[in-house]
Amino acid sequence: MILTVTLNTALDITYRVPALRPDASHRVTEVTERPGGKGVNVARVLAALGHEVTVTGFTGGLTGRLLRERLTGIPGLTDALLPVSGTTRRTTAVVDERSGTTTQLNEPGPVVSPAEWHAFQEVYEDLLKGVSAVALCGSLPPGVPVGAYAGLIRTARAAKVPVLLDTSGAPLRRGIAGRPDIVKPNAEELAELTGSHEPLTATQDARRRGAGAVVASLGPQGLLAVTPQGRWRAAPPARLRGNPTGAGDSLVAGLLSGLVTNLPWPDRLVRAVALSAATVMAPVAGEFDRRAYEELLGRVVITGEVSAA
Amino acid sequence: MILTVTLNTALDITYRVPALRPDASHRVTEVTERPGGKGVNVARVLAALGHEVTVTGFTGGLTGRLLRERLTGIPGLTDALLPVSGTTRRTTAVVDERSGTTTQLNEPGPVVSPAEWHAFQEVYEDLLKGVSAVALCGSLPPGVPVGAYAGLIRTARAAKVPVLLDTSGAPLRRGIAGRPDIVKPNAEELAELTGSHEPLTATQDARRRGAGAVVASLGPQGLLAVTPQGRWRAAPPARLRGNPTGAGDSLVAGLLSGLVTNLPWPDRLVRAVALSAATVMAPVAGEFDRRAYEELLGRVVITGEVSAA
Repeated sequence: MILTVTLNTALDITYRVPALRPDASHRVTEVTERPGGKGVNVARVLAALGHEVTVTGFTGGLTGRLLRERLTGIPGLTDALLPVSGTTRRTTAVVDERSGTTTQLNEPGPVVSPAEWHAFQEVYEDLLKGVSAVALCGSLPPGVPVGAYAGLIRTARAAKVPVLLDTSGAPLRRGIAGRPDIVKPNAEELAELTGSHEPLTATQDARRRGAGAVVASLGPQGLLAVTPQGRWRAAPPARLRGNPTGAGDSLVAGLLSGLVTNLPWPDRLVRAVALSAATVMAPVAGEFDRRAYEELLGRVVITGEVSAA
Repeated sequence: MILTVTLNTALDITYRVPALRPDASHRVTEVTERPGGKGVNVARVLAALGHEVTVTGFTGGLTGRLLRERLTGIPGLTDALLPVSGTTRRTTAVVDERSGTTTQLNEPGPVVSPAEWHAFQEVYEDLLKGVSAVALCGSLPPGVPVGAYAGLIRTARAAKVPVLLDTSGAPLRRGIAGRPDIVKPNAEELAELTGSHEPLTATQDARRRGAGAVVASLGPQGLLAVTPQGRWRAAPPARLRGNPTGAGDSLVAGLLSGLVTNLPWPDRLVRAVALSAATVMAPVAGEFDRRAYEELLGRVVITGEVSAA
């Protein structure tokens, strides 16, 4: 069982419009809704790969009810979300059909009370008892202390559960001090954390700040991993065309899947890149193309060196 | 009792963002939700003026439930909405705080089945028995025939209930042939209907197409009314600053309020312009500023001529 934590779950709405023009009125031609928030997305990919996965975090209001309804019926996925008095946020992606660009509008999320945050930490500690890895994903809703992830990481470490952190800004900066086993920043998050725009320098710096391993996602360039076992670059065999929505979440799912099946680091990275690339190539945003994934597994380009023991 | 019909009700969502940039990600700083759709807005203004008003039309799904929850507790307003199996649409207004512009994203609405449309027509005929006026407002949801308003107008005329039509495009073109007592197009709708961009020519043409009276809303220039009793222009005393959202619905509410209290046409028009202007001036979109309304009643500029009997 893998556990994913999404403190700020979301109902992800996608609107297609012929062309988005500020200050104009638009008739939306297509509306799709799916349960979201990074940890929920990671869980859905893990479940599709055949893993048993539990999602926890907060959900509330009618939006939260809609989200939970959409989670039921996903084989292998267990809903352990906690109800809160506020309402789960909506995130709206407005896809401009002419240009192919996406404009994102994200609500801030419900205010979580101190009592709700306290209750979550108890549930989380219980859930850790039966899991082989935990991923802490995404932004913090209002009311949750900025150092929340550092605390959750320490609890996981005390329970001897390997922990992956995927967040940004202050929650990443504070969380990394809790010594997570893996962090997965993208280039922008890494630069914000370390002040360096040079990926290798920044990745090494992030590791010094407390992470066991740093896997930096560099968009079309694939990823750069600096780990206790060595450092590697892994990239898809060719430039991809498609929608990058959810590619980072699939990358996290690949890393977790490789971790719980005890793959060596290079194989974990190949799995992560193949899943991420297959997500970009899928027709539906955030899903992955299974045939592309299986084919890409043999074609990911990996280079690197193993550390001296 | 006044009846307003909103076949395509909506949950109106307003997002405030610091600046809307296509292809970028935005954190929404403020979210507000209110029950919407033109007829619902008209009803809310009528209720605030002290009229008894019933809203009917379709509503469904969780969005519909949210909408109905927000309608309860409005004094004077009775909810006679019919449930449908589809989900009530959301309309999202994205307000750019820097420029003050509003970008509108409107979902199409639930598909109404033939059985649901049939059921509505029976309920509508029953509701007409106790009312002094009816307003048919807004777009038609998918599944409702484009000639729907013409039929509803004929039913109202058979029941001797005066009927106001406020819609656009083909539903307006087809509806006007049913001979509504009043239509309230804006300049754009009027030009689309008649092919003329000259307001007086277009308004007179619209009347020839079957409307008893045409009240054209011309934005900051106020309104132009061509009626069996005469024709008038009415405008606010000065150029207004504010948010025009809902100004047209307040104008309709003013016309209905004047109609059911048997005001002569010039007084109805003054009430409509004052309400509309007080809506532009209100801090909350779609609400009206009561003090401004009362003050404007004495300051609306009206010019015109009474027809020879």
